[in-house]
Amino acid sequence: MSELRWDPVKLNWVIIAPERGTHWKDFPTEQPDDREICPFCYGNEGKTPVEIFAVRPDGPPDSSGWKVRVIPNRHPVLRIEGELKSRAYGMYDVMTGIGAHEIIIETPDHDKGLADLSAAEIADVLGVYRSRLLDLRRDARFRYLVLFKNHGLAAGANLSHSHSQLIAVPLAPPVSVTELKVCREFYDRKQRCLFCDIIEFELQSGERVVREFSDFIIIAPYASAFPFELRLLPKKHSHDFVLLDDAQLADLAVAMKDMLTRLKNALNDPPYNFILHTAPPMHARPGKPDFWSSIEYDYHWHIELVPRLSRVAGFEWGTGFHINPTAPEEAAAFLSETDV
Amino acid sequence: MSELRWDPVKLNWVIIAPERGTHWKDFPTEQPDDREICPFCYGNEGKTPVEIFAVRPDGPPDSSGWKVRVIPNRHPVLRIEGELKSRAYGMYDVMTGIGAHEIIIETPDHDKGLADLSAAEIADVLGVYRSRLLDLRRDARFRYLVLFKNHGLAAGANLSHSHSQLIAVPLAPPVSVTELKVCREFYDRKQRCLFCDIIEFELQSGERVVREFSDFIIIAPYASAFPFELRLLPKKHSHDFVLLDDAQLADLAVAMKDMLTRLKNALNDPPYNFILHTAPPMHARPGKPDFWSSIEYDYHWHIELVPRLSRVAGFEWGTGFHINPTAPEEAAAFLSETDV
Repeated sequence: MSELRWDPVKLNWVIIAPERGTHWKDFPTEQPDDREICPFCYGNEGKTPVEIFAVRPDGPPDSSGWKVRVIPNRHPVLRIEGELKSRAYGMYDVMTGIGAHEIIIETPDHDKGLADLSAAEIADVLGVYRSRLLDLRRDARFRYLVLFKNHGLAAGANLSHSHSQLIAVPLAPPVSVTELKVCREFYDRKQRCLFCDIIEFELQSGERVVREFSDFIIIAPYASAFPFELRLLPKKHSHDFVLLDDAQLADLAVAMKDMLTRLKNALNDPPYNFILHTAPPMHARPGKPDFWSSIEYDYHWHIELVPRLSRVAGFEWGTGFHINPTAPEEAAAFLSETDV
Repeated sequence: MSELRWDPVKLNWVIIAPERGTHWKDFPTEQPDDREICPFCYGNEGKTPVEIFAVRPDGPPDSSGWKVRVIPNRHPVLRIEGELKSRAYGMYDVMTGIGAHEIIIETPDHDKGLADLSAAEIADVLGVYRSRLLDLRRDARFRYLVLFKNHGLAAGANLSHSHSQLIAVPLAPPVSVTELKVCREFYDRKQRCLFCDIIEFELQSGERVVREFSDFIIIAPYASAFPFELRLLPKKHSHDFVLLDDAQLADLAVAMKDMLTRLKNALNDPPYNFILHTAPPMHARPGKPDFWSSIEYDYHWHIELVPRLSRVAGFEWGTGFHINPTAPEEAAAFLSETDV
C-alpha cells in the first residue's frame, strides 16, 4: 500500500509508492518495443484489469471492438479500496494512499499517437475525459482529479501505446491550490477573471499567439518555464471542463489536434506532458465554503502542455526557479508558421 | 540579455535566457565526446573567460598547473554587468537578468568525477565553494547564492568534464524562502532547530541513516520525492556553510566522498544533482530585519542530493506532488550495505 508522507521542510506531501513494481534497478532507459505483448492492443483485453468504461460500437466488455477504453492501472499510485487515515510517525505525518488511478487508452492502434487521430476520434477521447471526471467527482474522498498525458519515454510514458491517465487524489495539490487562490484574489480585487485578462492581452499583443480558433486559443505563456510550453484555453469564460457539450468538445478536438500536430511537425514528435486544469469537484472542495462562492466567475479551465526538450537540473530543484532558453515569442512564431 | 518574468498564475519568477545559445534544435540527446575540444582541460585555459579564482600550485593565471579553477560561464544565465531594473509590460512584470554565473572546474582530469577525487582533493573543491560564496556575498544586489552540481547529461550537465556551478540570483528563491520560514516558525514554537530534531529522530530510528560520521550524517529523507534522494548534514548545529574551518572541510570531504562513492558503486554511476542549502548573505537578506534575528539558531545548513533515475512526468508538473517508487528505508538499507 502506498503512503502519503508530509515533508516538514518543503511543506508538501510526497507519494511513496514502492509497490508500483518500479524497482530502482528497473528504471527504463529506452522505450521497449512492447508491440508483441502490448496489453492496450485489440485481443489483449484479458491481460488488463476489468474495464471501467469504453466507447464501444461492438462487442461485450473486455473484448475487442472498442474505440476508447478505460481500465484501472494495474500498479496504481493510489488505491481506491480503504479509508483515508492520517497518523503521526514520530515527528512526521503519514496518510494512507487512497485515491484512484485510471488509464484511458485513446485508440486501439498501437502505432498512432493522439496527434495522429482524426478530430472526431480525439472528440471521443475528450468525451471519455468528461465522463470519467463526472463519475469520480461523486466520491467524496477525492479532493482533486488530475487528468494528464505523458507522451514518450522522456516524458514518463513507460508504455508506448497512446494513453492518458486520471489520478484522483485525497488532498488538494499545491499547484491547484495556488492557481485557485490567485484567481480568487484577482477576481476579488478587479471583478474580472485573470485568464480572461490574459487572453485579451495576448490577442492585443499577438506576439505569443500560436493559433486562434473561433472558440479556443493556443498561446505560449509569457513566463513559460519550459521551451515551447503551451496553454490551450476557451476564449469564452468557463470554470469547468465538464460543462462542455458535444459540439464544444468537437471544436476543442480540432484545436487539440492542431496543437499536437504543430508540435509533432515542428519538433520531430517530441516527448510531452499535458495536464487539464479545471475546477475541483464541488462537494469535495476544501476549506471555507465562501472561498468557492465565486468559482464560476473567477476560475477559467485550460490545458497546459510542456514538451520535454530541456532537462530539469540542480538549479531548478534547488531554487524553484526555472531557466528557459527559448523565449515564448520565438516558440509562438515558429509554431504558428509550422504546417499542420 | 536574459529576463526575469513573473508568472501571474503560478506566482513565480522564470528566467528567460534565449542568449544562452541553446536553440531548440540544439538540445543535446547524447553526451558528446568533448575530450578533444574540452575547454576545462589543461592547455585550453585560453578558450575560457579569464579565471576568477584558482587553487594553483604552479603557473600564472589562465595557464596549466591549477588543481581547482573558477571561471565565469561563457553563456551565463544571469549577467553581472548592469542594474537590476523592474518594469511593467502590459499586465505582466519583468526584470533585467542581473546576477552571476560561475563554473568551478573541480579537477584538471577529464576522466574523473567528483567521487573519484581523493578526500584531500574534494576538500580543495569545498574550500573553493567557501571562498566564492564569501566573495559573492559582498555584492548587495544578490539575494541568494545557489551552489550546485549537475553530474551526467540526464542531470543537465552538457559538458562531461567534472564541474560545479554557482549562480547568484537577485531574488530570494521560493524553495529557500519556504525552508527559511519553516525553520523560523519551528524555532519560534519550540525553541529548537527543525533539522536538529530530524537528526535526533533519524539517529533514534536508524531506518533511514545511510552513514554516520563523527561530525556529519547522511540520511535518506523521510518524505524523499525521488528514489535515493540523500541529505548530508553537520550533526552539530550550524546555520552557515562558510563558517567551516579547514579541518571541518576536510571531515566534510570524507563524508562527501563516501556519499558520492556509494551512489556510484550502488547505482552504476547515476546522473545526479546536488545543491548546497545555506544561510543567505546577511546584508542581502530580504524582508523584515527581525525575520533574520534568530537565523543562527533556527537554520541548519545541509547538502541535498537527487539521483536522476526516474522521470518527472505530467502528474508532478500538474500537481506539485511527487511520486517516489523507492521507499527511503529501502534506499538507505541498500546504500549503507554498498562497498565504498
